[in-house]
Amino acid sequence: MSADAPRAEGVIDAARSRSEHVLTGWLNRQGGACATLDDAINYSVLGTGKRLRPVLVYLAGRALGAEDRALDAPAAAIEMIHAYSLVHDDLPAMDDDDLRRGRPTVHRAFDEPLAILAGDALQTLAFEALASRPHPRLGELVTTLARAAGRDGMAAGQAIDLGAVGSTMDLAALQAMHQHKTGALIRAAVRLGALVAVEESDPRVAALDQYAAAIGLAFQIHDDVLDVTGDTQTLGKISGADAERHKPTYPALLGLENAQRRARELLDEALTALGPLGDAGQPLAALARFMIARDH
Amino acid sequence: MSADAPRAEGVIDAARSRSEHVLTGWLNRQGGACATLDDAINYSVLGTGKRLRPVLVYLAGRALGAEDRALDAPAAAIEMIHAYSLVHDDLPAMDDDDLRRGRPTVHRAFDEPLAILAGDALQTLAFEALASRPHPRLGELVTTLARAAGRDGMAAGQAIDLGAVGSTMDLAALQAMHQHKTGALIRAAVRLGALVAVEESDPRVAALDQYAAAIGLAFQIHDDVLDVTGDTQTLGKISGADAERHKPTYPALLGLENAQRRARELLDEALTALGPLGDAGQPLAALARFMIARDH
Repeated sequence: MSADAPRAEGVIDAARSRSEHVLTGWLNRQGGACATLDDAINYSVLGTGKRLRPVLVYLAGRALGAEDRALDAPAAAIEMIHAYSLVHDDLPAMDDDDLRRGRPTVHRAFDEPLAILAGDALQTLAFEALASRPHPRLGELVTTLARAAGRDGMAAGQAIDLGAVGSTMDLAALQAMHQHKTGALIRAAVRLGALVAVEESDPRVAALDQYAAAIGLAFQIHDDVLDVTGDTQTLGKISGADAERHKPTYPALLGLENAQRRARELLDEALTALGPLGDAGQPLAALARFMIARDH
Repeated sequence: MSADAPRAEGVIDAARSRSEHVLTGWLNRQGGACATLDDAINYSVLGTGKRLRPVLVYLAGRALGAEDRALDAPAAAIEMIHAYSLVHDDLPAMDDDDLRRGRPTVHRAFDEPLAILAGDALQTLAFEALASRPHPRLGELVTTLARAAGRDGMAAGQAIDLGAVGSTMDLAALQAMHQHKTGALIRAAVRLGALVAVEESDPRVAALDQYAAAIGLAFQIHDDVLDVTGDTQTLGKISGADAERHKPTYPALLGLENAQRRARELLDEALTALGPLGDAGQPLAALARFMIARDH
């Protein structure tokens, strides 16, 4: 395994580069009706994102035999959904953030109306990108992305999160919030990749879903931990911001060490879930380890 | 023709009722993750809307031989896109409206974060609805809706509109703005209905597109005219609001009578475009007449 680690890292980096390239292509393919809106959209996406979700699309799809060119559209689509959600979450009426990924947020770099519209148009572009390539399971792909993003997924998670500021939230409620707010989209990324390759009934789809559920939660716990332990320069956002807003977090509820232990347990669960994939799952295993080791 | 007019009106009313029923079904089908978000979404859609866009989907689709049950999904989808755009357009950072369709706007009835999220989730639900039924041209349907709604369609129109407040806009610029802001979605409605029934290459699709382009513009001119001539109670929104904001309008640029004449010319263009459809186009002709005759 140790000999394979550098190779797996290269695979992840290559997937990240490919998703960057595909996103850039999509954003350049259109536009022109309103140059300022185009600028705001490009600024929202083409920053310094980790591209975790598109990388998951590529790695999950490849693990089940899909070709990269068939994965480009869902990879671009899910990153656009993620990017739109960040733009709207940062708005003054929402989290009111000035800094994102080390740069001014979209409503600071442009203005609030353009941030709202750029987010709106990015969500639209996500579905256009997803439908841009014929696929026998296109309906399932669109449904997967929409359910993860919408009123029973990410949007619900953000609404629950906003409603919870200043209130007390127990561990079960916190977990349910995160399963919607970030978990749903991470699971959708893995599922989109899988559904490009195989039918939903393939047992490896269920195995990958277990993997995705575990890393989604581990990722969020680790994010909360970083908010306590990281510094502002490394994070690219204001560290300690959650505590300042009295947002519920895993370290606040579990204690820092228990939260870190829980993240490691979830990593183990994720790695175990990859069993049925054999060697084909190694890049996904490496990505899970990378996600929990990251310091930003 | 006069004998057919009451029948055509009945057909339009029936299509409106069907779209109301289908929308209600979609909104009740899901939800539960966040009850307040569900409430805000339902409030956004299930009001007193004219359902013009879904009616256009039904009438255009039927005119080319599609069955209603195949038109339900695109009809619901386009109304959800329209409803989301109204919720976001009304936001304090955008048009800052307190009243819509005679009721408090969503951010007044709920709050601003919920209005943003309800709009976001409605857009998502539109694409989920559209993809909910298998169709051999599903990719084209999604692309049609997305292009009309996105950065080169409705969202661009709203960005251009916001950028134009207080500035001088000539007739060509005003027309381009409206073609994006409202025209694109009206054309998409007709096109979605048509594509459910036939291939894009069918010459009746082009005829319907001419019809849609004409009524889209006529509708907007008439809307501007109503803003001058209507009263607040009939309109369900503040009359004279455009002039108060120094928004460019057709009556301001053309004069009231010329604007009214232009709307009637466009109505004639729309009716002429329906020629190739024969009697099958009569409900669409009646709808066009209704749109220009309406006082709200």
